[in-house]
Amino acid sequence: MQALLLRDGKLSYQSDWPQPEPKIDEALIRVTVAGICSTDLELVKGYAGGFNGILGHEFVGVVEQTGSPASSEWLGRRVVGTINLGCRQCAVCLGDGPEHCPNRTTLGIHNRDGVFADLATLPLVNLLPVPDVVADECAVFTEPLAAALRIREQVNARPTSRVAVVGPGRLGLLAAQVLALAAGDVVVLGRRPESLALPEQLGFEIGLVDEQPDDRFDLVVEATGNDAGLAHSLRLVRPRGTLVLKSTFHNRANVDLTKLVVGEVTVVGSRCGPFEPALRLMAMSASLTQKAPAGIGVQVRPMIEAEYSLSDGLIAFDHAAQPGVRKILLRPN
Amino acid sequence: MQALLLRDGKLSYQSDWPQPEPKIDEALIRVTVAGICSTDLELVKGYAGGFNGILGHEFVGVVEQTGSPASSEWLGRRVVGTINLGCRQCAVCLGDGPEHCPNRTTLGIHNRDGVFADLATLPLVNLLPVPDVVADECAVFTEPLAAALRIREQVNARPTSRVAVVGPGRLGLLAAQVLALAAGDVVVLGRRPESLALPEQLGFEIGLVDEQPDDRFDLVVEATGNDAGLAHSLRLVRPRGTLVLKSTFHNRANVDLTKLVVGEVTVVGSRCGPFEPALRLMAMSASLTQKAPAGIGVQVRPMIEAEYSLSDGLIAFDHAAQPGVRKILLRPN
Repeated sequence: MQALLLRDGKLSYQSDWPQPEPKIDEALIRVTVAGICSTDLELVKGYAGGFNGILGHEFVGVVEQTGSPASSEWLGRRVVGTINLGCRQCAVCLGDGPEHCPNRTTLGIHNRDGVFADLATLPLVNLLPVPDVVADECAVFTEPLAAALRIREQVNARPTSRVAVVGPGRLGLLAAQVLALAAGDVVVLGRRPESLALPEQLGFEIGLVDEQPDDRFDLVVEATGNDAGLAHSLRLVRPRGTLVLKSTFHNRANVDLTKLVVGEVTVVGSRCGPFEPALRLMAMSASLTQKAPAGIGVQVRPMIEAEYSLSDGLIAFDHAAQPGVRKILLRPN
Repeated sequence: MQALLLRDGKLSYQSDWPQPEPKIDEALIRVTVAGICSTDLELVKGYAGGFNGILGHEFVGVVEQTGSPASSEWLGRRVVGTINLGCRQCAVCLGDGPEHCPNRTTLGIHNRDGVFADLATLPLVNLLPVPDVVADECAVFTEPLAAALRIREQVNARPTSRVAVVGPGRLGLLAAQVLALAAGDVVVLGRRPESLALPEQLGFEIGLVDEQPDDRFDLVVEATGNDAGLAHSLRLVRPRGTLVLKSTFHNRANVDLTKLVVGEVTVVGSRCGPFEPALRLMAMSASLTQKAPAGIGVQVRPMIEAEYSLSDGLIAFDHAAQPGVRKILLRPN
């Protein structure tokens, strides 16, 4: 099969890679569409201890085979899949779930081949059927949309909260849309005017992060993953406010923490989120036109920049790494 | 009157400084005992934008005069006082109180003369009478004990929580005592065995911070204020656990934030706390012997290192700045 393989920090296209075999509790999935995420770009740069294997964790596909006849009801179903595989035995798995299992593997990120391939495997417990009304090019956003929804699992964004999303990138715009649901007052902040065109098109109030006064927001979501974005986010959150770190910092941060202590700020790290509400939200939003205002459902189609075939995967990665680029999708076939 | 004056980064003893006049809503207080805090030491080093004025914010004293005859019931009362003075008009003051008022002054810290003097003034609304059963050398701990109690205002330390306090210094030991109240499981961690003698004497489980395994604690209180302490604290807190920053960082921190995001840690900045419960706690604890186990009331007397007269204030500051030194008290008279 085809696959985009990361080995010793080098990404390559393989046209004849051995196809995986599903274990007894797994499904073999034919990937329909996959999405390139900032984490993939960072993995290519060597983040996360040098992952070796097939890259990719955002996908939608169709179950082609299962590891046991007992699970044949999955055959032919269109699915998305959660990306963490826990040991299912430790206190963490039995309590909170697999996302923080110390022995976990993570699809296309840590010790588990991913989805930038014709075929991939996942345990059946990780799979969710996709509602018919959600198109493939939308369903592929389930994982990042779930990650955005995770913020609302962790923090109560009140209807009266003043909310800022710092960083109008791929994840930032999903976070902004999720935070704007149900009467939230959300402003999207960026460093350059041209980066604010898409959030403005999506109906958001926008602003240049440099021009915002201190202590303005009850809730700030940091979605840049760099020191400057973090410093601005700390500056903008009001005393006793909440700062959500949504982007992983891949280098050591150099940051003035005085405001954090003196202003009694709460900082919340935020990672993977719930898939079922993400699918529900996209199904609810499927009937909306692209002119629906911010806060009415979510719009993922405007976030698509381009599609590439898997054989053009290296070109697709170069494109995704350019600044200000929206989501790049890969279609194996 | 006598005063310890900080001016242009230089601390001096003044034997004949003009005594303050209480405004109409204020009291003039004769200081009985005052305590030197790490913040005082940092102010002498130039932290907080170069405070100029009489230093000191931890005190107990007696009201000698009031600004209006209408408040004469305060005369002769033994009092402690909260240290933040808000404008009492802005949304922050009217909502949360004066601690985060953008126009606040802070006793002996920011734009307001402090208590390392024979006499000091404070608004009557800042004063609390001290219960008779609480001795002066205990009452002077009200402010730092309140700051320790602030942790319990912000975070639910459950009876089943595994709690670590990183940094066995003055504030760390108050935090540990407060967190151990009512069946909490608290361990005090330090870098050097000799720093753990006092927490051990206070009945705490102790440990060397280097020797603790990762991800061990549900709740970690960082009470060192340095990069190494912060790095250990992040390492020790479990995924989805809570890290309280109790010490102000006076330099830019250089820190790896990966664990914060990937482990979805919540970081809570913590500053000033409630005085009334602090006084109540010391009153409740007054009948205990010094051999009461950790978690039964609080013991502040073992935390006293030495007392100095105000005229020996500079020597007292040198003593307080030495590593591992407990609380240094000043008695003006």
